[in-house]
Amino acid sequence: MDSLEKIVSLCKRRGFIFPGSDVYGGFAGTWDFGPLGVSLKKKIMDEWWKFFVENREDIYGIDAAILMNPKTWEASGHTATFADPLVECKECKSRFRADKIADGINESVTTEQFLATHTKCPVCGKENWGPIRKFNMMFTTHVGAVLPDDDQEIAAKNIAYLRPETAQGIFTNYKNIVDTIYPDIPFGLAQQGKAFRNEISPRDFILRDRECSQMEIEYFVNPKTWKDNFETMRELQHEFLETIMLLPKDKIHEYEVPEADRAHYSKRTIDFMFDYPNGEEELMGLAYRTDFDLTNIAKASGKSMEYRDKNTNETFVPHVIEPSIGVERLFLAVLSSAYTEDEIDGSKRTVLKLPANLAPYRFCVSPLLKNKPDLVAKAKEVYTKLRTKYGNVTWDDSGNIGKRYRKQDEIGTPECIVIDFDTLENNTVTVRNRDTAKQKRVSIADL
Amino acid sequence: MDSLEKIVSLCKRRGFIFPGSDVYGGFAGTWDFGPLGVSLKKKIMDEWWKFFVENREDIYGIDAAILMNPKTWEASGHTATFADPLVECKECKSRFRADKIADGINESVTTEQFLATHTKCPVCGKENWGPIRKFNMMFTTHVGAVLPDDDQEIAAKNIAYLRPETAQGIFTNYKNIVDTIYPDIPFGLAQQGKAFRNEISPRDFILRDRECSQMEIEYFVNPKTWKDNFETMRELQHEFLETIMLLPKDKIHEYEVPEADRAHYSKRTIDFMFDYPNGEEELMGLAYRTDFDLTNIAKASGKSMEYRDKNTNETFVPHVIEPSIGVERLFLAVLSSAYTEDEIDGSKRTVLKLPANLAPYRFCVSPLLKNKPDLVAKAKEVYTKLRTKYGNVTWDDSGNIGKRYRKQDEIGTPECIVIDFDTLENNTVTVRNRDTAKQKRVSIADL
Repeated sequence: MDSLEKIVSLCKRRGFIFPGSDVYGGFAGTWDFGPLGVSLKKKIMDEWWKFFVENREDIYGIDAAILMNPKTWEASGHTATFADPLVECKECKSRFRADKIADGINESVTTEQFLATHTKCPVCGKENWGPIRKFNMMFTTHVGAVLPDDDQEIAAKNIAYLRPETAQGIFTNYKNIVDTIYPDIPFGLAQQGKAFRNEISPRDFILRDRECSQMEIEYFVNPKTWKDNFETMRELQHEFLETIMLLPKDKIHEYEVPEADRAHYSKRTIDFMFDYPNGEEELMGLAYRTDFDLTNIAKASGKSMEYRDKNTNETFVPHVIEPSIGVERLFLAVLSSAYTEDEIDGSKRTVLKLPANLAPYRFCVSPLLKNKPDLVAKAKEVYTKLRTKYGNVTWDDSGNIGKRYRKQDEIGTPECIVIDFDTLENNTVTVRNRDTAKQKRVSIADL
Repeated sequence: MDSLEKIVSLCKRRGFIFPGSDVYGGFAGTWDFGPLGVSLKKKIMDEWWKFFVENREDIYGIDAAILMNPKTWEASGHTATFADPLVECKECKSRFRADKIADGINESVTTEQFLATHTKCPVCGKENWGPIRKFNMMFTTHVGAVLPDDDQEIAAKNIAYLRPETAQGIFTNYKNIVDTIYPDIPFGLAQQGKAFRNEISPRDFILRDRECSQMEIEYFVNPKTWKDNFETMRELQHEFLETIMLLPKDKIHEYEVPEADRAHYSKRTIDFMFDYPNGEEELMGLAYRTDFDLTNIAKASGKSMEYRDKNTNETFVPHVIEPSIGVERLFLAVLSSAYTEDEIDGSKRTVLKLPANLAPYRFCVSPLLKNKPDLVAKAKEVYTKLRTKYGNVTWDDSGNIGKRYRKQDEIGTPECIVIDFDTLENNTVTVRNRDTAKQKRVSIADL
């Protein structure tokens, strides 16, 4: 097993992440978070919210609906350009993303370029291809009373999309926010929420799924100052990733995206790449979106997106710096950085060295023996005390103490507290450290 | 304006809730939460999670995908029965939910019954109706490489639905949880997340929207004990609503749903009704779902859903008690209970008497005058100190002090702290209470 497979296996075995709809054989590109996964995911999202929204005076939260007026996606360019190159094998009818099955071509590949690669069908092995077609990755649905036998016209009039990015939920609210909150510029709007992409071939565990959670900030600035604000946002991202998520600095690499590869709306993009178990992959992006979105919304809605600076009386359409991160990508970065195999006293173990602020459980409390009522009662007392104080404390009296340590190591619990016969005598407990496996005696009062 | 309209207006004016896609003229049945709305919504959801998951040992969190294998909805009965009676006016082609435009009929109305009501079309006034048709409220989409010109067969093979309830994301994970966490029975699985219903006519602000957030618990019990567990869950709901959300007890009414009106899966349901500004409406439901869901999943998946009690060795398919609440319904219950119009010293005001644990801001800090650098500096000092301690503290130096109080009253800030010239002398500040409008002097050290 390579190390990504090991992580996938641990995630399922310990209740972090299960394949979506697992009981029905799954549903490609979807994943369900189990009890430990929810806990870790919530902590990651809460830390982000605290860092970027609650602890700052210049960034406000919003939470827009997933279903939006379809004009949104015309104005943003998604209806026209949010597409992957699809190719169909004429022999076996299998469909693929052209740029993923052939070498040396990119997303804007033409039929001629693709045929010139002489790619064989990965399913049937033949080489008989139809033309490259643009496959729009937005999921479509119909809103309102549309019946299955209605004609195309009624259906088209009622079309809606599952948002492919949370960003547009922010841009469309910019005007309402400016008119109700009167924020001083620069200011940011932050959002956490689901986004959907109909990937032709979902893959790489939670890295390329069809449904993901995004955390995005649109930071509105005076166009004259975009460079400084870009730098400020860039530093903030590093601070968050390295001091709050405690990701190893040397696994994060900035990649300055060249003009030809940038999204249509961006004048500068830095991809923050991360060393995942299966190679370097995008963790997050920082994009200078200029006034692309606000200007298009102004055109499409007929409403002015101008901002008047109360201090200088200057009037302008703000430009936007956008840090955008996928929760699942960050989750896997945290998990894979924590994943460790080592040896303790000659026996191999798997341990998740998660930061204490992210570990699903901060402490595990155990009685040394399960069949000694005195020990169990004392352990319950300590457990209740810590749980009331910290919340995320777990109880474990299964198997023997060695097995419990292995289990808590695997789910990343920083410290195990064991109540033994000495505890009954002198009110001290054993505190065992996850990373060092070292134990020390601590008085209950000092926990 | 009636009081619901006043609340809608306050929500928009102060940045709690905007119509979805407002800049494009809206998108029926969707709503966007602004900065204050997100804050209140998050606090409501966090309090629920703390009360039902973190503070309990028998309830675990999960977070399943919105897109699920379509077998889910066949097994649950939603494909067949999750439908409203749709009727079309043959004159003007308008479509309506039959039971909402005619009196004295319910959701299972037949064409004959509807015609007998002699209802006129609310749009054109004629009485020329087509037959009643069942309109399934699940939004449909297609997953994978389906192209717009693909035939019906390919489209049908790739159909998927936006989940109409979060509950099924729990039931489909039951087996994985039992196999990885080994919970003692009774145990619950709790989830917060989006659900979608294609309402024919969304209405009543956020009460009947097309996209909502649900908080659901499936509590798995030994079938012999369902009555006791039902009572326990019932009491817990009251405790949460009355002691954590601080909803007035006399606005909550239990309604024992008679058999004929219960959902197909339920053997007992209590609706918790609430006195909203526009009348009594469902706030939440408590349902005894029996083994309906697990048994259907067992049939559809071929996998056993039996649970073996480790203590008694008894084996059975657990029965389920389900408390289910919509976040938006709870949000509006909290907001409308807090909404008050009163008179302070002869002048009328609007005040949101929100509980301190839910108010978007716990404190507002202000300098008495904006143009006195000494006051501003001292106020900033106090502001920074409180913000570091409590997080949710706001700053306001706009307009005069009376206007600031009115604004903070409207957004529900429990206390306003004002720094004046005496503060510079003796380090005391004015603390003004939102509900009484009374002021007192407090030393900064005691804040």
